[in-house]
This record gives sequence, C-alpha cells and structure tokens, in this order.
Amino acid sequence: MIDAEQRLFELGLKLPDAPLPVANYVPFLISGDQLFISGQVSKDDAGHVLTGLLGSSASIEDGRKAARHAALNILAQAKAALGSLDRIVQVLRLTGYVASSPGFSEQPKVINGASDLLVDVLGDAGRHTRSAVGVASLPLGASVEIDAILKIR
Amino acid sequence: MIDAEQRLFELGLKLPDAPLPVANYVPFLISGDQLFISGQVSKDDAGHVLTGLLGSSASIEDGRKAARHAALNILAQAKAALGSLDRIVQVLRLTGYVASSPGFSEQPKVINGASDLLVDVLGDAGRHTRSAVGVASLPLGASVEIDAILKIR
Amino acid sequence: MIDAEQRLFELGLKLPDAPLPVANYVPFLISGDQLFISGQVSKDDAGHVLTGLLGSSASIEDGRKAARHAALNILAQAKAALGSLDRIVQVLRLTGYVASSPGFSEQPKVINGASDLLVDVLGDAGRHTRSAVGVASLPLGASVEIDAILKIR
Repeated sequence: MIDAEQRLFELGLKLPDAPLPVANYVPFLISGDQLFISGQVSKDDAGHVLTGLLGSSASIEDGRKAARHAALNILAQAKAALGSLDRIVQVLRLTGYVASSPGFSEQPKVINGASDLLVDVLGDAGRHTRSAVGVASLPLGASVEIDAILKIR
Repeated sequence: MIDAEQRLFELGLKLPDAPLPVANYVPFLISGDQLFISGQVSKDDAGHVLTGLLGSSASIEDGRKAARHAALNILAQAKAALGSLDRIVQVLRLTGYVASSPGFSEQPKVINGASDLLVDVLGDAGRHTRSAVGVASLPLGASVEIDAILKIR
Repeated sequence: MIDAEQRLFELGLKLPDAPLPVANYVPFLISGDQLFISGQVSKDDAGHVLTGLLGSSASIEDGRKAARHAALNILAQAKAALGSLDRIVQVLRLTGYVASSPGFSEQPKVINGASDLLVDVLGDAGRHTRSAVGVASLPLGASVEIDAILKIR
C-alpha cells in the first residue's frame, strides 16, 4: 500500500486548505464506508479560480491543470474528512464537468489531469470510475468542477 | 430532531403530489439505507414547469425559485418512498443542473434555493454535499433539475 | 426472474466488447453490493461513435439509437465485471447526458432509448432512477453518454 502523504511530498505537492463551501451545503459527508465529496472547482493554492471555456478561451493544457487543481481540492476535502489519506480504500467515482464550447470533445484529456494526479498520489486506490462531460458553464467561471464518492476504512 | 412535517406546516408549505416520471423509469429506489431519487425538474404545485435559461431569459431570483420547487419535488418523492420524511437520516448528495448560458457563473446562488429549503425543512438532516453545474438545456425547458441520494432509516 | 442472456438472444442483440477506457481510469468498480460503471458513450458494435448535437445535427431518433448503444455498453461492462448479467439485482441509477443545443428539451425521449433497452433485457431489475440533462458537448463528439450504479448479488 502506498503512503499517500509521503507520495505527495515526493511529488513536491502540498494539499491546499480544504475550500469552504461557497453556499449552504457541506463539503463532505460520511455514510457507512462511503465518503461523498461536494463538487470542487479548479481553484489553486492561493484561492485563485482557474477559469475559461475549453474549445475557446482555455487550452487543453489549461484544462488539465485546472482538473489537477480540482483533484487536489478533492484530496484536501478527503484529508479534512478522514484525518489521513491512508483511510482511502478506493476512489469509486469521479464526475468531471468541463466548461466547454459546443464543438469541444477532448473532455477525457482534460479530466486526465485529475485522474493522473489521483493515481500518482494514491496508487491503485486512486483508480476510479468516471464520467467526463462538457457543460455550458460552471460556478465562478471555473474551467473544471469535479465531485467524488470514495470508499473508506 | 426536527419534525419535518410540522416544519413544512410552520413554513406554510405543502408538498406537491410526487411527480410521475415523464418516461420509462421510476421516481425512486431504495437500496439498503440509501434512497435514490430521479432528477426532479422545477415544476410547481399546479404542474407548471418553471422554464428559462439563466444568464438569458431567467433571473437569479427566477432560478432560486425554480430550484426551491425542484427540492419540494425531491421531498415529495421521499415522502412517497418512505411514508414519512422522519425516516430521512441525511441528504447525502444533491446534483443541481442549471440551464445556463455560457457566460453564467452563479449556479451556487441558484441551487441555494434548493439547499436552503432542505435545511429549513429537515434541519441538520438536510445538510448535504452537492455539485452545481450549468448545462445547455433541460427536459421540458426547465430552468433547474435536481437529483439526490439520501440516507434513510 | 428474467434470464437476461436469453432475453438478449430473443431480442436479436449481442453485447459489444466492453469498451476500453479512453483515458486513465477503470471501466467499473465493485464496492459491497454496488457496481459503479464509468460513463459509456454512444459507440456501436463496430466501435463507431454515434455523434451529433441534439436539436441541431442529430434527430431525436438518432439520439434514441445513440442512447440504446450507450446502454448496451453499460451492459457489456456489467457482464465484464460480473461474469453474468444474472448477478444484477437492480439498476439503481442512470445519469444520461445528451449533447444538446440550448433550445432542445426532449432529453427524456432520447434517454428512453437506454431505459427501454434495460427494461427489455433485465425486466424489473432494469427499472432505474435516472436524470437526463442536456450538455454542451461530450467526449469524441458523442451524442449521448451514460453512467450507472447497479445493485448486485
């Protein structure tokens, strides 16, 4: 089993503070062995939102970076919920929403920014099922929003 | 623990009849301690759909009202499934789809119309994780569609 | 209880090979009695993606057909995960994403292509809760993407 905290250190990554909800809901809930995490937008460590529409004002590389930040926020929420990332058994489901122009169809490449990070940090426990879809727009003008369901111990 | 039915009365609210599915699916399913509720569009007590695109033909206030009605329909389905709202342990997940123009980024304010209602009626059991995203369009031209997963006893 | 494999035969249907993920994720995961299946796009047996925007370059009938193929891919993944479709207790949740122009509001008719197929093949076990929403665009230009959560034995 991978030591996720050690792995973050090796990758030169630091989890951001778990973002506070921007409205009347909670960032995570535990039910039995499942951890539900609210949609996390692409916000960097400084709290700056990575914005732009894929297929128009944002490049695929911008999108990948945005997805990576959204996934770091998912991990930050998981750590806030669980105390330690080592309690993650498996990331079960990721839904990746990509702000997209009607002609854009590279959502999988964008959301790979999140998927790759989760596998880099969590190893096999980070391998997840996922959907990637292109939406009209996202909160705060974000390029990417990702929510998740995790299996925990 | 809050008495949800009493609370509805105090708020001057009446649950609508649980809307029938508009196609070949079921409105709710129970699996173990989880209740899955199908996407509910913004339809008022009279069965009139609240329509319009946010950022274009519908205002944020229109959207909040639409989200509130979608949430009332979620509660109506929960009551139909469970007999009583008192069997709700926790609203685990809400996904809020907002029909949005590409430039609209206030989905959280819109979906608060649903979140606020659930907390008003259910108290802490109504606090949920959620995602709010801007979609191109919704069934029947609705401004808002919301689906949910609830933990039940 | 219906014999799903027999039913496929009677309907003249053959499950396609379970599509490989187009990126860094897994097609399915089992957690307890739940099977999570990744978003399946509308890809036919020959691996050809059914593309086009509903309300614009694709008709409702095109969309229904696309949804039916996405559902066949869901079944193909379920079979790959479980060995036999007879281990399906209930399709709990379907989320149907339809690539839509802003004015298109017939997503339920489109996603019925999937819902009808699941009920045809699985009988009552195929009756599910669902959401149908209109998104800006989908991976590979697909008309439809569907993900699912199933209860299994």
